Amino acid sequence: MSVTDEYLANNEQYAQTFSGPLPLPPSRHVAVVACMDARLDVYRILGLSDGEAHVIRNAGGVITDDEIRSLAISQRLLGTREIILIHHTDCGMLTFTDDDFKRAIQNETGLKPEWAAEAFPDLEEDVRQSLRRIESSPFVTKHESARGFVFDVATGRLAEVTP
Amino acid sequence: MSVTDEYLANNEQYAQTFSGPLPLPPSRHVAVVACMDARLDVYRILGLSDGEAHVIRNAGGVITDDEIRSLAISQRLLGTREIILIHHTDCGMLTFTDDDFKRAIQNETGLKPEWAAEAFPDLEEDVRQSLRRIESSPFVTKHESARGFVFDVATGRLAEVTP
Repeated sequence: MSVTDEYLANNEQYAQTFSGPLPLPPSRHVAVVACMDARLDVYRILGLSDGEAHVIRNAGGVITDDEIRSLAISQRLLGTREIILIHHTDCGMLTFTDDDFKRAIQNETGLKPEWAAEAFPDLEEDVRQSLRRIESSPFVTKHESARGFVFDVATGRLAEVTP
Repeated sequence: MSVTDEYLANNEQYAQTFSGPLPLPPSRHVAVVACMDARLDVYRILGLSDGEAHVIRNAGGVITDDEIRSLAISQRLLGTREIILIHHTDCGMLTFTDDDFKRAIQNETGLKPEWAAEAFPDLEEDVRQSLRRIESSPFVTKHESARGFVFDVATGRLAEVTP
């Protein structure tokens, strides 16, 4: 049995006690952008209940065009007004460089990715970089606050990054 | 008090009983790609425990360059070998068109986004489209399975989409 099949069996259990449907727009008007890291259970870390907040995640929790797209849809069509950015300690993005990663892919496949891998050497600096990318976007302008945090995978605690 | 501040207070509670740290690589070697929708608590829907799987999310759960980037890092640097794609019923992406969304932004800001909004008229068709984008990528090739599902926000149940 694959892990996917195991998770589908878990879903059967989940559905037994599920009560829905909830409305489409996030009830607390929040959008979270976080790293895809397996140790970040964003709903539990922030105490989110179903239906409260959009959760956008990728490698690093960085802001690229796709997060701008998601945030623009989140704000303009579904009314979110606060952004919470989350990077974390012991992040995989601290362990390599774009050049090495893309060279390895090029050596194996013959093709060099046309996108940046978005590795970074400093967590807080990259949280600030992500905040600045939001600030500089002409398409994500409806929020009343955008704050950045580092999640400590050893303690479970969020620490705010000064802008 | 902002909602962000409320969530930070929740995080203080979370940290009280947190036990970490876990290892960086996902222990079940799975990467999930899902919509950012507030009603999709991916960890609960699949019964994921901390540290098991990468979770990548955006508006629609679609595959763009940024999901290819995240999946390439997930597979090549952190060893994931199964991909689970999740779209859902009552999705916001079914309620608009790229043309209208981008025209509204252009009318308001004077700038037309250079990216696609990735709206779609049919859920299952878009799950298949996302699977095909993964299949066609030269950079995401290490998985043993990639399966797509629609989550029903009324029942909590996942239904597999035939490729």
